[in-house]
Amino acid sequence: MRERIGRGGVKKAVRDVRAVILAGGRGTRFWPLGRAAKPKQFLRITGREPMLLETVRRIRPLVPARRVTLVADAASTRLARKLLPRLPKESFLVEPLARNTAPALMLATARVWLDNPEAVVAVLPADHLIRDEARFLRTLRAGVEAAARERALVTFGIPPAYPATGYGYIRHDRESGRKIGGAVFYPVQGFKEKPNLAQADEYLASGDYAWNSGMFLWRADVFVEKLEIFAPEFMPAWTGMVEALRSGNRKKLRAAFALAPALSIDYALMEKVDGVLVADGDFGWSDVGAWSTLFEIWPRDGNGNACRGEVLALNAKNCLVWNPGRLTALVGVRNIVVVEAGDALLICDVALDQKVKDIVEALKKKKKHKKYI
Amino acid sequence: MRERIGRGGVKKAVRDVRAVILAGGRGTRFWPLGRAAKPKQFLRITGREPMLLETVRRIRPLVPARRVTLVADAASTRLARKLLPRLPKESFLVEPLARNTAPALMLATARVWLDNPEAVVAVLPADHLIRDEARFLRTLRAGVEAAARERALVTFGIPPAYPATGYGYIRHDRESGRKIGGAVFYPVQGFKEKPNLAQADEYLASGDYAWNSGMFLWRADVFVEKLEIFAPEFMPAWTGMVEALRSGNRKKLRAAFALAPALSIDYALMEKVDGVLVADGDFGWSDVGAWSTLFEIWPRDGNGNACRGEVLALNAKNCLVWNPGRLTALVGVRNIVVVEAGDALLICDVALDQKVKDIVEALKKKKKHKKYI
Repeated sequence: MRERIGRGGVKKAVRDVRAVILAGGRGTRFWPLGRAAKPKQFLRITGREPMLLETVRRIRPLVPARRVTLVADAASTRLARKLLPRLPKESFLVEPLARNTAPALMLATARVWLDNPEAVVAVLPADHLIRDEARFLRTLRAGVEAAARERALVTFGIPPAYPATGYGYIRHDRESGRKIGGAVFYPVQGFKEKPNLAQADEYLASGDYAWNSGMFLWRADVFVEKLEIFAPEFMPAWTGMVEALRSGNRKKLRAAFALAPALSIDYALMEKVDGVLVADGDFGWSDVGAWSTLFEIWPRDGNGNACRGEVLALNAKNCLVWNPGRLTALVGVRNIVVVEAGDALLICDVALDQKVKDIVEALKKKKKHKKYI
Repeated sequence: MRERIGRGGVKKAVRDVRAVILAGGRGTRFWPLGRAAKPKQFLRITGREPMLLETVRRIRPLVPARRVTLVADAASTRLARKLLPRLPKESFLVEPLARNTAPALMLATARVWLDNPEAVVAVLPADHLIRDEARFLRTLRAGVEAAARERALVTFGIPPAYPATGYGYIRHDRESGRKIGGAVFYPVQGFKEKPNLAQADEYLASGDYAWNSGMFLWRADVFVEKLEIFAPEFMPAWTGMVEALRSGNRKKLRAAFALAPALSIDYALMEKVDGVLVADGDFGWSDVGAWSTLFEIWPRDGNGNACRGEVLALNAKNCLVWNPGRLTALVGVRNIVVVEAGDALLICDVALDQKVKDIVEALKKKKKHKKYI
C-alpha cells in the first residue's frame, strides 16, 4: 500500500481498487427493445450511452478502465468488447458456465488476489442507474476504506422508497453506525429474500431495512478468508480456480468453476458472514426494472408524457413512448407504454409493465414467434 | 333500348347502364395508413382489395368494366390506372380543376349523353362498403328502372342506425311508396344538411329520414332537362363541356369546367329538383368513416379485438390493430386503435378516432412534419 500527502497535509492511503462489473444479465422486461441478443445493459434507455458504458464511466474517477473486469457469458462478452474496444482482452472474463453470481465473483476475485491480495474488489451490476454520481463516488470511496481498514465485506443498502416486493432487503443496526471515510457504516443483521407485501410494509415501517443493491466491496484476501470460514464448500472450487489461473489452463478453469455450487453471492456468502457492513446508498439508485421506471428518468411534458422519438400528443397523458426514427401520434390515450423496436410493437398499461416478461414467455411457446424474442 | 325475353316469358328491358365512380376523395381519417398520396379508396381496409376495386367488382353483374368511368383528380387517376390496368384510357376522366362534385358529374354525364342520351348513369362513391351485395344489386337494378321509366333522379337512403351528425339526411314520404322493379321508391321531400344532435334525434324518431348515401341514378337526357329547369346557372358550363368533348379540345374543356359553380351535386341540383325518388338502401352500407368502423367489418376475437397482423394480447379488450408484417403485443389495454404504417404510428382512443384528422391538421403546421401527411 502506497501513501500520499492529502490536501490537508494528512497522509491518505492510495488504494488499489478493482471493479468487477457483472455484465451478463438476461432481463426480458425491456422487450421488445431488449431482446435475447441485446439485454438491458446494452440498451441506451437511461442516457445517451448503453447502461454498461455508463457504469464504467461513472466509476472512472476512482477506478481507471484498466482496473475494470467485465464478467459475463460469451454472448454478452462479445457485445461488451464491441462497446469497449480499447480495453485489452484480459479485461473480459468469460464465465465458463452459467452458474449464478457466486462462482463468477470467486473467479474474478481470484484473479485480483493473484495480482494483489490487498486490492479491494468493487462488485457493480452493469444495468443500474445512479442519479447522484458524486454522492455515489463518495460512498464508494468510503466503502473501499471500510473494506480495506476493517477487513469487512461491505455493501450499500438503498433507503426503501415504498414497500417493494421485488427486492431483497438488508436488516441493519441503525444505532451502531460508525463513520469510516466519508460515510456511516452499520453492522448488517441479516439479508432477507424478497418479502411479501405485508412483510415489506413492516420492513418499511421499522426503518431497519434497506433494499439490497447488489453492490459489494471486499479485499481479495478477506474474501477468501471469509469463504474458508463461512462457506468452506466453495474452497475446492477456489483452489482449483487459482491453480487454473496460474497455469492458464482453460479446461481446468472450467472444471474448477463447475465445482462451485450455482448460488448467488448473497446466498452463498454475504448472508452467512459475520461483520458485514452496510452504508446508506442514498445516491438516487434505480435498478431500472421495467419500462415505467423510465418515467423517473426521462423528462416529462406538461401532461406527464415521457418520450423518445418524435411524438404528437392530443389529449394524451402519462404515456411513455420509445419510438426513435418514427412519428408517434397519441390521441386521447392515458397511462400506456408504447415501444416500437424492429419487428415488434408493445402497447402496455403502465401499471402492468411487469407483465412484459409474460409476453416473452408466451412468445417462447410458438415456433413462429421465437424470432421476436 | 333493346328488349329480351326474361325467364318468366316477360319482356325485360336491357338498359344501357354507365357507372360513374367518384374516385378522387382525399380523406385523412385513416392516417397514418391513408396519406395524401394514398387516400382511403386505395386502401385494403375492408377486404383483400382496395375499396375502389371492390366498388368496380361489386357492380360487375350490372355494369361491365368497359361501361365504368372513374372520375378523379390527376393524382388519384394515376393510382386508379395502376389498379385497373386493363381499362382503356377513356375510362378515366380527369377533373380539369378541383370544383366539388357537381361539375365533375356534369362532365361525366355529358360524355354519356353524347354517346346515348337514354343511358342511365349510376353515380357511386369509390370508398363505401356494402355488406349485402346481392341486395345492393337488386336495389341498383330497380333504381335503373326507376330512373329510366319514371324519368326521375333517383337516390338511395340509408335507414339510420343512430342519430348521426356526420351525414346529410333525406326526408321522404313513407306513405306514398311505389314498387318499381324490385324495390319500393318514395317521393323525396327534401335534402337536409348534417344536423346537430337534437335534430338528428328528431329525424331518427320521426321515421321519415334516411342518411344520404351519395349514390345517384339518372338518365343522361333527364339530367340535362332537370339542370336546365332547376339549375340554369350551370347551363353555360354544360354547353361548353358538350362542345369541348365533341371537339376534343382540352383547353376549352377546362374553361367550360371553370364556368360551373363549385358545388356538390346535392346542393347544386338534387335538393332543388321535383320528383326525386329514394329507395331504402338497407344493404349493409357503411361509409367507413373512421378506424373504429372497421370493428363492424373485421372479425373480432373473444375479447372484442379486431386485428390485421400478428397480435399477442394479454388482457386486452376492444382494440383495433393494423400492423401487418410485425408483431403487436397488447398488455392490459382497452378501447384503443393502433395503426403502424411506414414512418408513423397512431395510438388513439376508439371513441376519439374522429380526431385523427386533427393530427393531420397539426402535422401540416410544421415543416418537419409534412413528410408524414
